[in-house]
Amino acid sequence: MLLQVNQERLWQSIEDINQFGATAEGGVCRLEFSRENKQARDLFVRWCEEAGCTVRVDKFGNIFARRPGRNPDGAAVVTGSHLDTQTSGGRFDGIYGVLAGLEVVRTLNDNNIETENPIEVAVWTNEEGELFLPMIGSAVWLGMNDLEETLDLQESDGLTIRQGLQNMGYLGDMEVNSYPVKCYFEAHIEQGPVLEENGEVLGVVNCAQKQYWYNLKVVGQEAHAGPTPMASRKDAMVAVSRMVLEFDRIGRAYDNARSTCGHFEVYPNSRNTVPGEVRFTGDLRNPDPAVLEKMDIEMRESLAKIADQMRVELNIELHTTIDYVPFNETLVNWVREATIETGLPWREMYTGAGHDCVNIAQRYPATMIFVPCKDGISHNPAEDAKPVDLAAGATVLANAMVKAANYGGEL
Amino acid sequence: MLLQVNQERLWQSIEDINQFGATAEGGVCRLEFSRENKQARDLFVRWCEEAGCTVRVDKFGNIFARRPGRNPDGAAVVTGSHLDTQTSGGRFDGIYGVLAGLEVVRTLNDNNIETENPIEVAVWTNEEGELFLPMIGSAVWLGMNDLEETLDLQESDGLTIRQGLQNMGYLGDMEVNSYPVKCYFEAHIEQGPVLEENGEVLGVVNCAQKQYWYNLKVVGQEAHAGPTPMASRKDAMVAVSRMVLEFDRIGRAYDNARSTCGHFEVYPNSRNTVPGEVRFTGDLRNPDPAVLEKMDIEMRESLAKIADQMRVELNIELHTTIDYVPFNETLVNWVREATIETGLPWREMYTGAGHDCVNIAQRYPATMIFVPCKDGISHNPAEDAKPVDLAAGATVLANAMVKAANYGGEL
Repeated sequence: MLLQVNQERLWQSIEDINQFGATAEGGVCRLEFSRENKQARDLFVRWCEEAGCTVRVDKFGNIFARRPGRNPDGAAVVTGSHLDTQTSGGRFDGIYGVLAGLEVVRTLNDNNIETENPIEVAVWTNEEGELFLPMIGSAVWLGMNDLEETLDLQESDGLTIRQGLQNMGYLGDMEVNSYPVKCYFEAHIEQGPVLEENGEVLGVVNCAQKQYWYNLKVVGQEAHAGPTPMASRKDAMVAVSRMVLEFDRIGRAYDNARSTCGHFEVYPNSRNTVPGEVRFTGDLRNPDPAVLEKMDIEMRESLAKIADQMRVELNIELHTTIDYVPFNETLVNWVREATIETGLPWREMYTGAGHDCVNIAQRYPATMIFVPCKDGISHNPAEDAKPVDLAAGATVLANAMVKAANYGGEL
Repeated sequence: MLLQVNQERLWQSIEDINQFGATAEGGVCRLEFSRENKQARDLFVRWCEEAGCTVRVDKFGNIFARRPGRNPDGAAVVTGSHLDTQTSGGRFDGIYGVLAGLEVVRTLNDNNIETENPIEVAVWTNEEGELFLPMIGSAVWLGMNDLEETLDLQESDGLTIRQGLQNMGYLGDMEVNSYPVKCYFEAHIEQGPVLEENGEVLGVVNCAQKQYWYNLKVVGQEAHAGPTPMASRKDAMVAVSRMVLEFDRIGRAYDNARSTCGHFEVYPNSRNTVPGEVRFTGDLRNPDPAVLEKMDIEMRESLAKIADQMRVELNIELHTTIDYVPFNETLVNWVREATIETGLPWREMYTGAGHDCVNIAQRYPATMIFVPCKDGISHNPAEDAKPVDLAAGATVLANAMVKAANYGGEL
């Protein structure tokens, strides 16, 4: 028999937190370090304390709310996500994973369940990365980024992370990563359309795809749009248009692949001038690293050929590599078992987006649970999800976490 | 025997004016209404007065320097151009036509030549249109735009043209277009590579090509770049890339045609998001209006097909039509005769760019003379031209203007 969370309570908690930063368009703007984010953190902390948890804040502002186990020194089974949003953010990205964790604690309390090992609910600092870097809270916690250096990072307005945390009252005194951790779960809206398009309610996530993020620059020759004959031109944007179509073609040519060119800067970006230079971003993604290598080679060869034909200079810089990260098989199994027990339609899938869990899975056993969001839309005021689906995800989370907290073996 | 201008004097005048607004990159920033532009106007006025001209400023700040003829009430033979530049402007665009006109006056003085009708050298206000609208000085002078309404146009910083002219001391009291005009000539750098690529020094310009300028908008669906499968996407930038290639294809498919997509705004323009909306500009140009109609129809059909295939919304707004303007045959003949007499290589051509002359040719007999600029580059600090070529153009201008000023017939 599955332990069942309280759908109404979970929904109401999400609604209550979303009063902080609610926008006229129906979305949420709750940037890290803002007053609204402090209010959200404060309310979350109060709720956790009311639920009997001990709340600590580490030196990077990450919050941990602990529900003790029979074995108070046992390695913790952690879940969590983030409370911050994009400027034009939605009502479920991040907050769902945090409040699903709180709902697990409340459900355990309701049912007087004591777990062997402690349960922790984490709020990671500054996941969205509209300020500073994305997923930096978990990165610092894991030691991927240096604590002091990162605290001193400065935004263009002069704000450092250290000052931002101080302003909110969340520059804690607990050392980062200072208690034993057994494993990590994160529940999240899918941020894509796959579950909804297939009429499915739960996503069992078994890995994070590998990603190559590129910065590309094409230099042609700026020229007056009227007098310059077509044959004399080196139009950077015409060349880039062909390159964008190559990215798109390659993304469609391989199973499970993705490719996107999302950001463009055109110079001089004037109606009456042939574009002389274009800087743009591209990415290639695949859950199979060997296939991604093929895509990378194919993209580089195709673009070099286009640049040659169009007599433009091309520079491709590999800006970021996000490694393929397999999630822990035992955890994925527990999530799958609980999912099947719900009787709801589901699928096994991978995460295409970055999450704190993708950082954490590189050091600890970890996995994720996805629930559908309307039309696959996220990072947008139109972001939406159904209370019943959110509760289904939290129910799976609760049962998988209890299994993990009572498990004596190695993960 | 051709009347010859003084190459060194013309070059030195250009150098002297270009001290106002000279940039570190070797270009010129002399926006209309700026202190630098006032200084350039003041020096030009002083030189004209020293050359014996009567200088008047009209109610739109256009300057007219008159060298009287035997018949003081005769319709004037006008030449001119502009002193303002783009923000990232060059050393020859505009200024060359103004100072070639002054050089004609000085050359007539040197040779004690009295013409039948008066000669006028004009400086048109605000040709570049980085502020307000391009070629607005000649447009108001011709009555295409209303004087008072245009004076009250306001920039985003609150400046009106009226205030801008007052600030410079160039809000004159002469009514616009208040003296009889016989015809108009304008000498200009080509702003394209055709003359240079063909080893030619002089361009006899016989018309302005017809132009359609479009604002285009493509609306797809913003989506997260990681989770969203390729088949579920409506990527606005992929659609626009196909459209840019269609513009380019059409521009190459017809003789003498041009097509350019110069300005792009991508939303949300984020590396990790499939573009949901793109606004961009396109233009189609052809000296044959019937061919331009074909190009327009073909472009609209092709883009509609692409939008349909890519499931994106497409909106095409015709933003500006610049009509085909044939230049006056008699004036073109005089320019051609003088050009041939120089013995220099030349070609007959059309103007692809807009100029005050294209406005004026719609009301008065008018034509242009082009000289080469290095690599066809203009609106750029790298804009360059040779003293000998500039002098050749001014020599042709002088001889054609004298013919016009002594001509008794109808044009």
